[in-house]
Amino acid sequence: MKQINPSIIYPIENWHVSETEFDITTNQRSETIFTVGNGYIGIRGCLEENSSELENHTLPGTYINGFYETAPIIYGEAAHGYAKNHQTILNVPNALPVTITMDGEKISLFTGKITNHTRKINFKNGLYERHITWTSAKTGKQIAVSFSRLVSFTRKHIAALKIQVIPINFTQADINIESALQGAVTNQEHDGDPRAGATFSGQVLRTKETIQQNGILGLVQETLASELEIASGIKHSMPGEITQKTDFWSEKWYFDGSEPIEITKFISYVATTENNREMLCNELATASSLGFDTLLQEQTAFLTDFWETADIQVTGDDALQQALRFNAFHLLQSVGRDGKTNIAAKGVTGEGYEGHYFWDTEIFIFPFFVFTKPEIAKKLLKHRYSLLPNAKERARDLACSGALFPWRTINGEEASAYYPAGTAQIHINADIMHALKLYVEVTGDTQFLREKGLEMLIETSRFYMDYGDFVAGRGFTINGVTGPDEYTALINNNTYTNLMVKDQLEFLVASLTEEISTQFDVTDTEIKQWKQAAKQMYIHRTDSALIGQDDSFLTKGKWPFEATNKAQYPLLLHFHPMKIYQKQVLKQADLILAMVLQSERFTAEEKLVNYDYYEPLTTHDSSLSPATHAIIAAELDRMEQAVSFFYYTARTDLDDYHHNVKDGVHTAAMAGSWLAIVYGFAGLRIKNGNLHFQPKLPKEWTSYQFRITFQGRLIEVTTNLKGTTYRLIHGETISIFSDNNSLQL
Amino acid sequence: MKQINPSIIYPIENWHVSETEFDITTNQRSETIFTVGNGYIGIRGCLEENSSELENHTLPGTYINGFYETAPIIYGEAAHGYAKNHQTILNVPNALPVTITMDGEKISLFTGKITNHTRKINFKNGLYERHITWTSAKTGKQIAVSFSRLVSFTRKHIAALKIQVIPINFTQADINIESALQGAVTNQEHDGDPRAGATFSGQVLRTKETIQQNGILGLVQETLASELEIASGIKHSMPGEITQKTDFWSEKWYFDGSEPIEITKFISYVATTENNREMLCNELATASSLGFDTLLQEQTAFLTDFWETADIQVTGDDALQQALRFNAFHLLQSVGRDGKTNIAAKGVTGEGYEGHYFWDTEIFIFPFFVFTKPEIAKKLLKHRYSLLPNAKERARDLACSGALFPWRTINGEEASAYYPAGTAQIHINADIMHALKLYVEVTGDTQFLREKGLEMLIETSRFYMDYGDFVAGRGFTINGVTGPDEYTALINNNTYTNLMVKDQLEFLVASLTEEISTQFDVTDTEIKQWKQAAKQMYIHRTDSALIGQDDSFLTKGKWPFEATNKAQYPLLLHFHPMKIYQKQVLKQADLILAMVLQSERFTAEEKLVNYDYYEPLTTHDSSLSPATHAIIAAELDRMEQAVSFFYYTARTDLDDYHHNVKDGVHTAAMAGSWLAIVYGFAGLRIKNGNLHFQPKLPKEWTSYQFRITFQGRLIEVTTNLKGTTYRLIHGETISIFSDNNSLQL
Repeated sequence: MKQINPSIIYPIENWHVSETEFDITTNQRSETIFTVGNGYIGIRGCLEENSSELENHTLPGTYINGFYETAPIIYGEAAHGYAKNHQTILNVPNALPVTITMDGEKISLFTGKITNHTRKINFKNGLYERHITWTSAKTGKQIAVSFSRLVSFTRKHIAALKIQVIPINFTQADINIESALQGAVTNQEHDGDPRAGATFSGQVLRTKETIQQNGILGLVQETLASELEIASGIKHSMPGEITQKTDFWSEKWYFDGSEPIEITKFISYVATTENNREMLCNELATASSLGFDTLLQEQTAFLTDFWETADIQVTGDDALQQALRFNAFHLLQSVGRDGKTNIAAKGVTGEGYEGHYFWDTEIFIFPFFVFTKPEIAKKLLKHRYSLLPNAKERARDLACSGALFPWRTINGEEASAYYPAGTAQIHINADIMHALKLYVEVTGDTQFLREKGLEMLIETSRFYMDYGDFVAGRGFTINGVTGPDEYTALINNNTYTNLMVKDQLEFLVASLTEEISTQFDVTDTEIKQWKQAAKQMYIHRTDSALIGQDDSFLTKGKWPFEATNKAQYPLLLHFHPMKIYQKQVLKQADLILAMVLQSERFTAEEKLVNYDYYEPLTTHDSSLSPATHAIIAAELDRMEQAVSFFYYTARTDLDDYHHNVKDGVHTAAMAGSWLAIVYGFAGLRIKNGNLHFQPKLPKEWTSYQFRITFQGRLIEVTTNLKGTTYRLIHGETISIFSDNNSLQL
Repeated sequence: MKQINPSIIYPIENWHVSETEFDITTNQRSETIFTVGNGYIGIRGCLEENSSELENHTLPGTYINGFYETAPIIYGEAAHGYAKNHQTILNVPNALPVTITMDGEKISLFTGKITNHTRKINFKNGLYERHITWTSAKTGKQIAVSFSRLVSFTRKHIAALKIQVIPINFTQADINIESALQGAVTNQEHDGDPRAGATFSGQVLRTKETIQQNGILGLVQETLASELEIASGIKHSMPGEITQKTDFWSEKWYFDGSEPIEITKFISYVATTENNREMLCNELATASSLGFDTLLQEQTAFLTDFWETADIQVTGDDALQQALRFNAFHLLQSVGRDGKTNIAAKGVTGEGYEGHYFWDTEIFIFPFFVFTKPEIAKKLLKHRYSLLPNAKERARDLACSGALFPWRTINGEEASAYYPAGTAQIHINADIMHALKLYVEVTGDTQFLREKGLEMLIETSRFYMDYGDFVAGRGFTINGVTGPDEYTALINNNTYTNLMVKDQLEFLVASLTEEISTQFDVTDTEIKQWKQAAKQMYIHRTDSALIGQDDSFLTKGKWPFEATNKAQYPLLLHFHPMKIYQKQVLKQADLILAMVLQSERFTAEEKLVNYDYYEPLTTHDSSLSPATHAIIAAELDRMEQAVSFFYYTARTDLDDYHHNVKDGVHTAAMAGSWLAIVYGFAGLRIKNGNLHFQPKLPKEWTSYQFRITFQGRLIEVTTNLKGTTYRLIHGETISIFSDNNSLQL
């Protein structure tokens, strides 16, 4: 097990995360932490004023989920069927810039004297707030400046920034405020870390039209290669002098310093190619007529509803309590809720992993939403369904029938430029189908299964049947794949993959109807083969309870952990992949994850033996990993390890364990903290359609409480020193199981 | 077994290859076939006159072995330890251009009337000859033009072109001849085939100096990135009017058509950075003072000596006879003989595989030279030794001790941009050491072993010891490699690799002296581990005589051969590597090759069973493959298959089986034809330091005869319908074995 040294960065607070000092060296990280977003728009927590001193210490960024540029992938040596194009989430026009001067002096963190500087986000109302108290070194005049930002959860295309300037110790000063929309923006330059983003440099948004009407300043731009359009605009709550510089639309105001100033900047982004200009103008008109306070009320109401089901309360560790809320809040900010977008590995907080959607969605994040906000989970599945045509095409690229979903993508096309850790992870199909099954189990929405789910099930299963082989003496084998553990590649019969496919095939066969079979040309022979493959699915078992991660894993030499120093982690940045692949070493949970998702397919002994075998070999170089180990450690009563792993996953971002929060939050690790409580300490599993719990309370805590929705009910689970109580908050009576005892709620 | 449809392209002749008609559609192929070279300089058989009609139908090319340009390898997704730079053999200034006009009409294949056009190369004197009989459509004047080219085997930096113009049916005409050195040359544009070359476009040679002295026209140029220099120059046997155009140094002459004209153009290339200008001028002065005929005499003498040992005579199949000579001749033209260069996969005939050196040298080509011209074989080993520092550095890139030779290279740095079929082929170390062992066995040159060989043996063995693992219950295992078969990648315990490493370790231990051990800090513990690893080397055996190509091969599904149509070969151009790797399908001989190189480590039954198993799974998509199968088929008395495979390897280039001769000859396949006779039909093996033969005569032939050098002797082997006779041509008496019977020669 990897040792982490928790070092709290931000103050521990219940419903906020804040900083009370500005540290230029960690500013990029804080910009990620203080991002506000609504699953469509994400605005990093950057300072409003531009300062040359910030160069190399800021990553200005506003992103639109699903809005990307493409560039051809260049291979040193290309081959047939390789993914063709990079897709990279695009930095869109920056609507933040506000420049305030007093008596000709620019108010910034690098001029005058700062007696107070805070940034904060509030999980209850979704507000970003920044306060500065600034004193002129020349005149001694003191001024308080506040910025309040929100990105509306209820109005997809709307954000707002309120600017307040309060004179403190004077009554007269020349105060100028300039507020802008900066159209010339670029993505970060690539720094060589394969986990970071960007595949092109320079500006890729070309301005097609400018907008100046009804107080709106805006731009309609299009990308060079992907040919997508976006309209961006701002509208202020007070009219001012409008200027246009080369890459800057701005409005300016002049005040005499005699009284407090308040200006609200309404912001909108519409990333559609049709009617974007009209939509933008309408959205801005509506938002500005409602005003900032109304937007904030809507925001608060939306979040109140969210926390009603999503909040987890832990007593006994405030740092964890804060992290759980921070994580849930960021998940909500990151998730696409329109059925046209998904949730990127970094949400809409940064350019890491190029803004791509991975299996992170279905395996780590989906359970959080399906149990708390199932309508969002449905949208995520709908989005995958919309990409089924691409997945079919991709299967053709691999000379296979059926459909293969892309390992990483924005637009549905495969964008993994290194197939051994990309396309070869064909478990992505089964991961998505696992989410579908979970969705149907949790919601009972068989209509979705019939209308969209089964088509995906059939096509992805067809891919597996074609890619796999019945091999005499073995059964159904799936060779030439990479499992979840990316430190092992292109192997045969990855146990995780094979078990997930087995489960998918069983689910498919059980869900098929004659009508559906007819609709998709499913023959009896095909069904028979699905049944056979599921039944005869090859699993690399040994003489003992130890199971091979794949056919070859157990016969490899072990990684020389003792000769590896701390600075050599993550291994992927310090060793050639060949060298990593040839040893017994894991980047992340693999078979252990199968023990969570296919819990009933392992005996208790198998879980114990395999956890003890694989855990010490796991570097957790992937942020996805600790949550899974937390869950199984809890199941195996390794409570100390479970708490430690839970702590790791819960505070991955707040404490920046991977030193790359600057590139964006780790949405899957965030969801992992929810999983670690609900699947881990509370032991939630669905067996035969029923909810089962096996709650345990770590000795460090006095209680935890959470709620889940299940087939129309809302159920509250409270575990404290006295035991666990289950409460049906609403919905019809239901039987659940606690420690295998049936309870009627 | 792959079916080939032999279709003879060029007339069958004993000591020539020629064409009697010009076919523009296949001209690029013929340019390769008619290349003349001396292992340093290679000049493709291109037409002397430039014709715009030839655009897209010619690949003009002159190459210098080891002269290259570099460019950074761009990866879609980079990782630690990847090869950093491409290296590409460079097209150097073109010294061929000769423009002849008569009465203002340019003489070319696209003007006038051609009644005769031939190109020919002669294996006995190394001469390229071209004859044209041309009649003006306007004037009816008929003229005969001849070009004779040679690249001197005895004068590394010298080539020569004789131009003869003979009036046939007239006594007066304005004949102008312009002969040039064209400095502005570029490499081919890349067409997407990974087997072709080029990584940059445009001209990369920058002219530093021009030369115009003592009748010499020349250029000193340097490359942009690799910073190598080359001097190129021409000098004519008659002085003329000298002109310089932008990219063209030329000399012009005016004749009245009253008598035959003869001009010789002496050509020199000196690709060294120091004194290149002086060397060039000296070389040209000497060559021109000797004259063309003297150069030709030297050439003839050199080749007479070569054929003395290298010629194989087959009676009963003239096409094979021609191919054997064509192949041996091209091998000699391709091989670097200066200890600073090696033999590229395409020799100096084209840009395919970027002019890189591969294992082709040691496994396929080396035996030909070591048994016919051992001094050349020694130079090849010396060249590898000169790259040992790079190999040590490369091992460090992989976090290993010792040395790892590059899979493909010119300058000693790894240039494989796709490591699963590149760097992962760590058998390259053992391949080179196998050649070393063969060299010592054949020549008895233990001095070389002591002075250079053992250092390579020690360092490459250290790499294997570090990369491999002792695994309980298995022995010494080598995981995470790719064997010779590139349709199977990143697997464990490739039998070929493991056996070759075993052999190398045994050879090392047997060759070590105390002095050497001290010199290279070899400890007793280290020697013990080498012995242990050799003894305990893991081989993936089964319950039967069938041996796994690696740990996982036998449990894969079989490639759907029946569903694969002919146009889908080579598979690598039509299927994603993932899909290919996951099936039982071979690009080329792998375990079968081990059965040749480690013959005594297999029982007769194992050879039979494994040949029958693997042969049908082998696509022979690699041109390296058929020769190996020919050898084992002969050993197993599968004479029909043996002949067929032999035919394939022998005429791979002459009949253009792979449709890519335009990019260069296949030197390894060429050498394979020698191997197929000597190792195959004659059954040559070295056992305990002794020569063993097991001769067989295919029913299609009446005899074959070849010579080999062995420990200072020259031995002639003749097999005909009566049996086999062995004759000691010179050297001390020696015992050899024929069909396991000892014979004294």
